Amino acid sequence: ADSALAQRLQHRLDRLTKPTGALGRLEALALQIGLLQGTDRPQLQQPQLMVFAADHGLARQGVSAYPQEVTWQMVANMRAGGAAVNVLARQHGLALTLVDAGVAHDFGAADGLVSAKLGWGTADASSGPAMAPDTAAEALRTGARLLAARPGNAVLFGEMGIANTASASLLLARLAGVPLAQATGRGTGLDDAGLAHKQAVLARCLARAPQASTPLAVLAEFGGFEIGMIAGAMLQAAAERRLIVVDGFIVGAALLLAARLAPAVLDACVFAHHGAEAGHAALLAALGAQPLLGLGLRLGEGSGAALAWPLVQSSLLLLDQMASFDSAGVSDRPA
Amino acid sequence: ADSALAQRLQHRLDRLTKPTGALGRLEALALQIGLLQGTDRPQLQQPQLMVFAADHGLARQGVSAYPQEVTWQMVANMRAGGAAVNVLARQHGLALTLVDAGVAHDFGAADGLVSAKLGWGTADASSGPAMAPDTAAEALRTGARLLAARPGNAVLFGEMGIANTASASLLLARLAGVPLAQATGRGTGLDDAGLAHKQAVLARCLARAPQASTPLAVLAEFGGFEIGMIAGAMLQAAAERRLIVVDGFIVGAALLLAARLAPAVLDACVFAHHGAEAGHAALLAALGAQPLLGLGLRLGEGSGAALAWPLVQSSLLLLDQMASFDSAGVSDRPA
Repeated sequence: ADSALAQRLQHRLDRLTKPTGALGRLEALALQIGLLQGTDRPQLQQPQLMVFAADHGLARQGVSAYPQEVTWQMVANMRAGGAAVNVLARQHGLALTLVDAGVAHDFGAADGLVSAKLGWGTADASSGPAMAPDTAAEALRTGARLLAARPGNAVLFGEMGIANTASASLLLARLAGVPLAQATGRGTGLDDAGLAHKQAVLARCLARAPQASTPLAVLAEFGGFEIGMIAGAMLQAAAERRLIVVDGFIVGAALLLAARLAPAVLDACVFAHHGAEAGHAALLAALGAQPLLGLGLRLGEGSGAALAWPLVQSSLLLLDQMASFDSAGVSDRPA
Repeated sequence: ADSALAQRLQHRLDRLTKPTGALGRLEALALQIGLLQGTDRPQLQQPQLMVFAADHGLARQGVSAYPQEVTWQMVANMRAGGAAVNVLARQHGLALTLVDAGVAHDFGAADGLVSAKLGWGTADASSGPAMAPDTAAEALRTGARLLAARPGNAVLFGEMGIANTASASLLLARLAGVPLAQATGRGTGLDDAGLAHKQAVLARCLARAPQASTPLAVLAEFGGFEIGMIAGAMLQAAAERRLIVVDGFIVGAALLLAARLAPAVLDACVFAHHGAEAGHAALLAALGAQPLLGLGLRLGEGSGAALAWPLVQSSLLLLDQMASFDSAGVSDRPA
């Protein structure tokens, strides 16, 4: 970090007409974004919300409360504008890009959907690798390429994929050493028996590939396509010094993957929320994250990132538009 | 509450294309607002942000880190559009009303300022009542009148007044029985010695008026004008079934006063944030509040309420605009 710039930013924050530090987390956020952009006048331009969708072979093991077909049905719902993420993107003026990273469905020549299929869902990770090593590498490259083609200096990530909390839990377990008992959650709503079954399936997955430890190997073994693409897009975004708004458990697992490849990606990240999925707390701890919101969300899609977006905007609007003690003629406290 | 309406609202929420309960606190919020408005199609119209400013005689006892003149200087800053609350009101399209409830300054015939002066600051509550009992009653009536004259079905409250955390702490101590050690905070930034001094001053205030226990008597003894007006405006807002967004410690103390007069006011309230002022935790507990944000704010002005506003909007936009499982052709989980 540029300490002269950090000082300039902190000085600007401290001269605004408010008690020192009174804007709390928003001041830290403005400082972070200023350092990321390399300016004491940071601005947010053309924010992009990118949602990556894919299917997971693990769904066949009954690890989700919903059937696999819900993935493509929800993609169709997003294309039609009816999902939560659409509502929130419209509310906040976020440009929404929907990517088919590997859904087990033929969408045809579909408007409003970027086709980047790496397969028709991953293979079942409980009986073999979710994808080939080359495909894992391609997922990262594709995510980077898609990100690079979008404008703007801020990106919010979301995902859709029945059973993708299972992949995220496996990544958390293997990359951060979190026990499955902590890393495994109810996803879209498993009951106690379903949760126990899911955890047993995940234990089999880990036992099947005890040697996988590098980020790419872990991605290849456990999936999924959308998680790999998000990780690749994050690395590209950080390289371009774009701000990254991290959604919930699955997007956070993608970030864990990205951060194991290039830890500096974390400097570009704002954590949107602490969700209700059981493994999210351990994941946030592994990332050293302090999320902005804690609303008990467990939806994914990028919904938490979109909900946090106006707070990110506020942090810079306050820095840019508030009067200073001097300009407003307000008495500062005695030094 | 209307249980048939509550069932209708819950059914609508449960049919939206998301796992049951996946929107967390936002679902509870949509339900609350629907019940308040008596409809399963609640909407927010012409939200008003009302900021009440006044001075406090207690400032002469050195209970604030800033001099009393900052009150009128910040009111002037708000009129000029340079305070945090102005930035946030512009960001979110909130109509801002600024009320002089009793600032110790002559603003002349000032544009952009509603003159409702009940005095030139309250009297020093450490040596006598902050205001006469009639004035306390007038504060409530004035707040109610000003609120009733504003349009819309939602109102956010804010305040400005050097030393008003002192009054708020006294209200919290007397109306909710919270010990001063818990109820007293650093306000705009007292150091340890300043905090100890403030607590000693507040202890003298409480000891001076041991008999004051009714809400109006407590308001008259400890002030302030802006707190009384906010309480009155809240009672009127609740009577009109408007949604109330509660800001931080001082606005929360005004709500405590209002709730002791008419507990049903709480049904209309959304709590914006858990702030950094020390007494806020005890105040929120006394109100049974679960705030939306926790960003370490300690600014007041209504800034926390404004920051929470887009979340309130999201809750209803999601209810209104999301597709249902049926309309979107998405498979629900097996019953």
